[in-house]
Amino acid sequence: MPSIPTISQATYEERLHRVQRAMREQDISWLLLGPSADLLYLTGFDAHVSERLNLLMLPANGDPSLVVPQLEAPNVGDAAKLVSLQSWADHESPVDLVASSVSGDIGAVAVGNHLYSAFLLRIQDAVMAESWIEAGDLMRSLRMAKDATEIELLEIAGRNNDLAWEAFVKAGPLSGLTERQALDRLLNLTMVQGTGQCWGICASGPNAASPHYSTGDRIIQQGDSVIFDWGGPIGGYYSDVTRTVHVGEPGDEFRKVYGIVLAANQVTLDAVRPGVACQELDRAARKLITDAGYGDAFLHRVGHGLGLEVHEEPYLVEGNDLPLEEGFVFSDEPGIYLEGRFGVRIEDAVVCTAGGGRRLNESTRELVVMT
Amino acid sequence: MPSIPTISQATYEERLHRVQRAMREQDISWLLLGPSADLLYLTGFDAHVSERLNLLMLPANGDPSLVVPQLEAPNVGDAAKLVSLQSWADHESPVDLVASSVSGDIGAVAVGNHLYSAFLLRIQDAVMAESWIEAGDLMRSLRMAKDATEIELLEIAGRNNDLAWEAFVKAGPLSGLTERQALDRLLNLTMVQGTGQCWGICASGPNAASPHYSTGDRIIQQGDSVIFDWGGPIGGYYSDVTRTVHVGEPGDEFRKVYGIVLAANQVTLDAVRPGVACQELDRAARKLITDAGYGDAFLHRVGHGLGLEVHEEPYLVEGNDLPLEEGFVFSDEPGIYLEGRFGVRIEDAVVCTAGGGRRLNESTRELVVMT
Repeated sequence: MPSIPTISQATYEERLHRVQRAMREQDISWLLLGPSADLLYLTGFDAHVSERLNLLMLPANGDPSLVVPQLEAPNVGDAAKLVSLQSWADHESPVDLVASSVSGDIGAVAVGNHLYSAFLLRIQDAVMAESWIEAGDLMRSLRMAKDATEIELLEIAGRNNDLAWEAFVKAGPLSGLTERQALDRLLNLTMVQGTGQCWGICASGPNAASPHYSTGDRIIQQGDSVIFDWGGPIGGYYSDVTRTVHVGEPGDEFRKVYGIVLAANQVTLDAVRPGVACQELDRAARKLITDAGYGDAFLHRVGHGLGLEVHEEPYLVEGNDLPLEEGFVFSDEPGIYLEGRFGVRIEDAVVCTAGGGRRLNESTRELVVMT
Repeated sequence: MPSIPTISQATYEERLHRVQRAMREQDISWLLLGPSADLLYLTGFDAHVSERLNLLMLPANGDPSLVVPQLEAPNVGDAAKLVSLQSWADHESPVDLVASSVSGDIGAVAVGNHLYSAFLLRIQDAVMAESWIEAGDLMRSLRMAKDATEIELLEIAGRNNDLAWEAFVKAGPLSGLTERQALDRLLNLTMVQGTGQCWGICASGPNAASPHYSTGDRIIQQGDSVIFDWGGPIGGYYSDVTRTVHVGEPGDEFRKVYGIVLAANQVTLDAVRPGVACQELDRAARKLITDAGYGDAFLHRVGHGLGLEVHEEPYLVEGNDLPLEEGFVFSDEPGIYLEGRFGVRIEDAVVCTAGGGRRLNESTRELVVMT
């Protein structure tokens, strides 16, 4: 197994300073983040989402503090070197701590996208700010372009999916397994490579025609198309790959649709370069699929950003004119879904480099026929 | 395995009507719920939490609708018989759908506690309401008192933990296993009983002294106390049990502390009856532990509600004067944590009945010594 690089304390410090600079430029007084990938990105603290408030409070100028439940304080770890801890016991009010820490002329407060609304409403009652805004734009400006260490982690995660897929294809027949059993086999093969807790979807036969179907107890049988969409973290950074196989020899229409999706995956990759708007990638795939007569069956955007979250900015969707930059990492995942019949999706993780798109996983995209 | 009762469509309809009645009484115009146990409780729809908005919009008078991503619409299932669907494609704005559905004189809007702040801020920008309030109080008034079917589901979930624990204690030595391996064994024994995807904590030796430590790679050894805190869902309703074992013969202080925690667990149960304030249960346990000299080492509240969520209302904590009612289900989980040395926690799920507290799990609370 490759050695896993870690994010250094110096990098977290630099990220905190970078977001503070951006806050000053955008006239944002405070940044409030609950448990989230944003918090993990800035401090390395992987806080627990619950009814107990964890909140990073970062002023545009000055030092950050972390409101943390007393009994979760031991989990803060090295992040305690970056932020001062304000712990609270179960019978105390964490919002009082927040209110007493925020003083002076309070302008715009940016709130982490994933903070629970209940916490936001309580904080809005206790703190008089000029405005409350989403922290999403601020945070994505830091998080979208990955640095060399982040890309290395994403590469290892992608390679582990490749190794797992290669072993999975050789591991025996699919037919007779339930979707759950087939998926467990694939996830276990991924985790033995060193990947952390994996997530996944296995959708077989008509289930494969619903792009957000989750794995069930259907027994895979001859004649099915089967979609596997899965990944897991390496050092916090996720893989996300989809492969579609056919059980038994496929018919002509399946082969045709598979070829169209494969071509759409490639045309999307070919469109990647710095400066191209996110929506152009979606348009490239959609034009190819529409010209082939299946536009109505391509039910979702062509991709999403990938990093500390499986879905994050930037979204590759019509209406998003954000230009790609070097270091952006995202999925390239066109699909065609024919209701009641079958579905095909082929997905890779791609990094935008100066020279164009580069895939982070390389297991075969050619049609695999299994038994 | 026992047959698992299901929540009927008639029950969901009745719950929707009940919450609308409460909204009218409390002058709340709209209830907005994202993916959450609240949504599941009212409709049976177990929506996916993501950057794509799912939102139940329930007016105080009139019919509910559900804003749902087009590609997740097939997952709505039977809930589509209760609510009208407003689906949106990836290139469309779900908040526009929300704004166009809310019309007329908009008073107070109650927002589900777990809705992402980003969605709330966008909706607040698009909809002019008189006030925005937490939906928590409204929803807990329905959800805290469980009906007969809900209690039956919680009982089955508790019994499965009992059966798993009995098998686990006999399954062989703990020493030499990592925390992760020991926990996996216990969770697998629970899931083979029919319980869904289980969660759990295994904390050994000094790790057991941190009440929110999560399972790691520490190897369990002679002389350790080991805390197992775990559960899983039956028909959506969770078990939550903690047992503490000792590996090898324990010393006098461990035996003493174990006895104190056991007595605190019992004194809490004995305090349960309708009309007693939640905080009185915490006080009962805390007084016993404090009188025994370990007050500073009881680091958390004595319990939390249990149902569709592992932590939900009511919280058994100082400051909560809410009176218990028949049908409330909650954990009874005192603990003593001696930093760097060991920890003991004993937890049961308890239902409040007319005659007092009744435990929903019954595996032995006497000290178990393992090898």
